[in-house]
Amino acid sequence: MNHKISWEKFQKLRGSKKSPYFKKQGKIFHAIMAQQFDRDFLDTTCRLATKTRKIADSKSGKKFLKNLLFDKRAMLYFSQPSSRTFLSFVSACQTLGMDITEVRDPSISSEKKGETQEDSIRTFSSYADLIIMRHHQKDLAEKMAWTMNFIGRPVPIINAGSGKDQHPTQALLDIYTLHRSFENYGGIDGITVAMVGDLARGRTVRSLSYLLQHYREVKIIFVSPPELGMGEDIKDYLKKKKVSFSESDNLEEVVEEADAIYMTRIQDEWDKKGKASQKNYENFCFKKEYLKLLKPNAVIMHPLPRRKEIPLEIDNDKRAMYWRQVRNGMWARVALIAMIFNKGKEIIDF
Amino acid sequence: MNHKISWEKFQKLRGSKKSPYFKKQGKIFHAIMAQQFDRDFLDTTCRLATKTRKIADSKSGKKFLKNLLFDKRAMLYFSQPSSRTFLSFVSACQTLGMDITEVRDPSISSEKKGETQEDSIRTFSSYADLIIMRHHQKDLAEKMAWTMNFIGRPVPIINAGSGKDQHPTQALLDIYTLHRSFENYGGIDGITVAMVGDLARGRTVRSLSYLLQHYREVKIIFVSPPELGMGEDIKDYLKKKKVSFSESDNLEEVVEEADAIYMTRIQDEWDKKGKASQKNYENFCFKKEYLKLLKPNAVIMHPLPRRKEIPLEIDNDKRAMYWRQVRNGMWARVALIAMIFNKGKEIIDF
Amino acid sequence: MNHKISWEKFQKLRGSKKSPYFKKQGKIFHAIMAQQFDRDFLDTTCRLATKTRKIADSKSGKKFLKNLLFDKRAMLYFSQPSSRTFLSFVSACQTLGMDITEVRDPSISSEKKGETQEDSIRTFSSYADLIIMRHHQKDLAEKMAWTMNFIGRPVPIINAGSGKDQHPTQALLDIYTLHRSFENYGGIDGITVAMVGDLARGRTVRSLSYLLQHYREVKIIFVSPPELGMGEDIKDYLKKKKVSFSESDNLEEVVEEADAIYMTRIQDEWDKKGKASQKNYENFCFKKEYLKLLKPNAVIMHPLPRRKEIPLEIDNDKRAMYWRQVRNGMWARVALIAMIFNKGKEIIDF
Repeated sequence: MNHKISWEKFQKLRGSKKSPYFKKQGKIFHAIMAQQFDRDFLDTTCRLATKTRKIADSKSGKKFLKNLLFDKRAMLYFSQPSSRTFLSFVSACQTLGMDITEVRDPSISSEKKGETQEDSIRTFSSYADLIIMRHHQKDLAEKMAWTMNFIGRPVPIINAGSGKDQHPTQALLDIYTLHRSFENYGGIDGITVAMVGDLARGRTVRSLSYLLQHYREVKIIFVSPPELGMGEDIKDYLKKKKVSFSESDNLEEVVEEADAIYMTRIQDEWDKKGKASQKNYENFCFKKEYLKLLKPNAVIMHPLPRRKEIPLEIDNDKRAMYWRQVRNGMWARVALIAMIFNKGKEIIDF
Repeated sequence: MNHKISWEKFQKLRGSKKSPYFKKQGKIFHAIMAQQFDRDFLDTTCRLATKTRKIADSKSGKKFLKNLLFDKRAMLYFSQPSSRTFLSFVSACQTLGMDITEVRDPSISSEKKGETQEDSIRTFSSYADLIIMRHHQKDLAEKMAWTMNFIGRPVPIINAGSGKDQHPTQALLDIYTLHRSFENYGGIDGITVAMVGDLARGRTVRSLSYLLQHYREVKIIFVSPPELGMGEDIKDYLKKKKVSFSESDNLEEVVEEADAIYMTRIQDEWDKKGKASQKNYENFCFKKEYLKLLKPNAVIMHPLPRRKEIPLEIDNDKRAMYWRQVRNGMWARVALIAMIFNKGKEIIDF
Repeated sequence: MNHKISWEKFQKLRGSKKSPYFKKQGKIFHAIMAQQFDRDFLDTTCRLATKTRKIADSKSGKKFLKNLLFDKRAMLYFSQPSSRTFLSFVSACQTLGMDITEVRDPSISSEKKGETQEDSIRTFSSYADLIIMRHHQKDLAEKMAWTMNFIGRPVPIINAGSGKDQHPTQALLDIYTLHRSFENYGGIDGITVAMVGDLARGRTVRSLSYLLQHYREVKIIFVSPPELGMGEDIKDYLKKKKVSFSESDNLEEVVEEADAIYMTRIQDEWDKKGKASQKNYENFCFKKEYLKLLKPNAVIMHPLPRRKEIPLEIDNDKRAMYWRQVRNGMWARVALIAMIFNKGKEIIDF
């Protein structure tokens, strides 16, 4: 893991198997962005997630899992509030028996004594075998991964959300949820995914779009108010990768066609006061009557937290997948961490 | 645990063995309020608390205990500051080998993104096998217990303090402290308990009053300034349950008679500025000279934190029980958690 | 551990083997100040730190270490922000398998309900087998050690930094770093140590000065701007102990002579606005060209966080020891905790 290359070259290699996100054999070391995951990796993640979940059904299985990484320590560095992602990672680490330390309040850190972020995180890395970090600063996780490659005791970095941009483990759990849902119906290849709501600011739909290119004949329908449409960069990317997509501003028309409906919340906390937030986005809510239109094997997903875009009464429908998505997230993270520490084979062999 | 009844019916069944606080065999599932505990449950708690305490005397015993629930995860959701109760529960969970996750700062949660409390706590429950919660909102723990009964993966809730009203595990530890203190003197039946101080606002004395009805021929003396007397609801309840009680505003006169003196602090943080807090409540402090009046086997209790109502010099008297009460609290909580997970028999058989 | 003496006498015995910091056999119980460590203790700490570090190289060794104190609980009470020291102690406790509870935010505590600090910490001690505390109040750790000696269940206290004054485990790790660096070159005896920068306000250089008296023929050179020179109390102490020292305001002249250069940061956060902080202390930075002057076996140390006093490019020099110092800190703390619980022999015998 001691590829010492410049920051510029590091950024250019992004997502490629030659990038220092990977160990020499092409195995994952740092998990920074959805673009670095290929089909093979996604398939392995899903397989491992399902296997560990099954192993954990028995007390002896739980003991086996807890013994896998009892000698490793994960450092959770969360400068942004997020109990959801935080708890999911803590639970994943505990499942594998890891010790956990955390820095949640940035004001606790030495930054106020004039220390650079690089020095702070390098200090944290002294006590850790894995750093899981969430930060409002866009490319800090990537920068730290690069920094780690220079030091004598490099520690893998998992990006648990950076800026508005990347949240790669959320994308992993979405893929895992689709995988589980369509496992007995031909898999993810060939399905139609409608992404609904605030596509301009939701990072989950962006990351998921990146990953869907790895599946054959997937169709994406972007359903949003015109002012909150999917970014041109993603659409260009999909064109280049020959992923079929269309756009719509009418959820009702799309419901029948979709195998997966990925709902998102209007992120009006980014709005200037009293503007878009006053707008009524009712047409981008999943109404109860849509349940009748929806295919029997389709799924409704949501990264949560939700507001009114999915009414409570939908929760009882067996196609409502968002609560299971939460638990899938934990298992996908268990799988990712296991792979970083080369424990995949041991798990599969159990 | 899937009794799906309305919130109204749920509230009506409060405390009754038919309430969904209990599993079908009448075993405890949620621990929400002192009223739900019966004599049988209290006796079992005391027996288990003492047994686990003894088991923990040896290193091998500690290993046995840590193996009981190594496969379970407790989520501590504390929106109110409380290091005392928090630490007690954390220690209890650790004693049983549980993994722990916590949400202590409510601002960390997704509530600010517009999520409902129900969704927040349901999310937390996804990663947990037990939720221990403390919240300023009066009936939130009860509401969450009700919510849990509706979902596919219900998780037991322990109320670690809600509003000004209920703090059922404090009541348990008070009973356990009385039990230990009078174990060799005929038990709690027949004792006289003086509750002293701010009876209007102290929730511990309220909960303890509820529980004392389960013991035969107990006498309660409420000792308080008139304006801080015990609430009518509790007095009515005791009348109905035929528990003998009297009221006094003179601690000194009561000391000789009491087997247990339960001191409490004047909670003037609830007062409007500069009013009652300026009042001198010296008559409701336990003065050093009272030690001579006190029966040789009597006990002085206090839920802590204390202020001047018990001077430091009392601490050295062997009847001062409040520091032992703190540790009793941990063992009572260990017993409660063990019962929720049906580990009682395994502990007794050790 | 039940030496009940007055606070005045307790303070007078400071640092002496007769003080109640020690168990009756002269073994350490509380770790409060650098002055209490003697040569024998320092040698044992270094030996144990190196041994545990080696044991931890294997998975089975890690399991052995984690089994040593699995039955003990450490309480970390940190009222001052410090992620560095906090993480180091957490990691040390985890290495030995201890359970951990923490109170990091003082506002969480019961102090706001009018509880005294003594009662608060005594409450914490109820759940703990070890208290590690950091507090802005100068002698609180010492006071708590004294308090502990009075109660029925005394718990050892480790001072993790109090006020501007004492930070004894930092001094331990500095000694351990010197020990490791000169192990194969005759040890610490006889070396020349330059302490550089803000000697007036840096507590690490003060504590290290205390400890260096235990080594033969050590020379200290204090290098600082005149207004930030080493305190007279320390200089008087060194004179009394016959430790040779000199003073300089020119780092460049000293570099060639020193075996260890202990850099420190100008702590201008204590300054009144816009005064000394505007001053340029460039002469007290370690410039790249000094590397050529420095002896081949010399070491550059820094307690971190650093600012510009050590430029990043120095990090790659093999004599730059500050990052290794961070990890040494964890191992020195592991050794200290192991000694407090009498696990030294078990570790050496492994």
